[in-house]
Amino acid sequence: MTTREIAEAFAALCREGRHAEAGERFWAADIVSIEAMDGPMARLQGRDAVKAKSDWWVANHEVHGGTTEGPYVNGDGFALVFSLDVTPKQTGQRMSMREVGLYTVRDGKVVEERFFY
Amino acid sequence: MTTREIAEAFAALCREGRHAEAGERFWAADIVSIEAMDGPMARLQGRDAVKAKSDWWVANHEVHGGTTEGPYVNGDGFALVFSLDVTPKQTGQRMSMREVGLYTVRDGKVVEERFFY
Repeated sequence: MTTREIAEAFAALCREGRHAEAGERFWAADIVSIEAMDGPMARLQGRDAVKAKSDWWVANHEVHGGTTEGPYVNGDGFALVFSLDVTPKQTGQRMSMREVGLYTVRDGKVVEERFFY
Repeated sequence: MTTREIAEAFAALCREGRHAEAGERFWAADIVSIEAMDGPMARLQGRDAVKAKSDWWVANHEVHGGTTEGPYVNGDGFALVFSLDVTPKQTGQRMSMREVGLYTVRDGKVVEERFFY
């Protein structure tokens, strides 16, 4: 699969809310996930660690809706633009989030994901 | 200035259509500009070369309108999401473009810009 084909398939799963499935299918074993924050979740490596972060997020947020735009492709990278209508359970305050996810592909797998917000 | 401050100032100029001024103010002398296409404009280095590309683009496109969303920040990088309503003079066909610009900051300047579409 080309980077664009992987990007299209990844985006299609995200658009259907199937983020976990996108990860299972496309994360490399040594996937690195980089958040724009300090703390223990700033940089995680490996499918188990990144899946644990995703599971934590899903368990701690109520998602009311969202959109995934893209993919936008350049070389071995692609970007997605996420909008999310969400209530973090910790605060109970419903909010709109918007962020850019930047993905790097190698040998048909996503080896890095980096989130900008 | 922090990366976020630079990103905000850069985005504000783009939102006002002052892209050239954003470049003049924030491009590093050895700025690298990477497009998602083959050919002579795929990778350019240096302010003069990148400015020449921008000038070519402006001279060959009629811009009817556009938006700049962001910035979205992570570490020394930031992303902008551009929408553009434009007619390339070569084709005369009005079209909507949407792309993500990814910028890397070092020592208060943009050292790399990379466009995804």
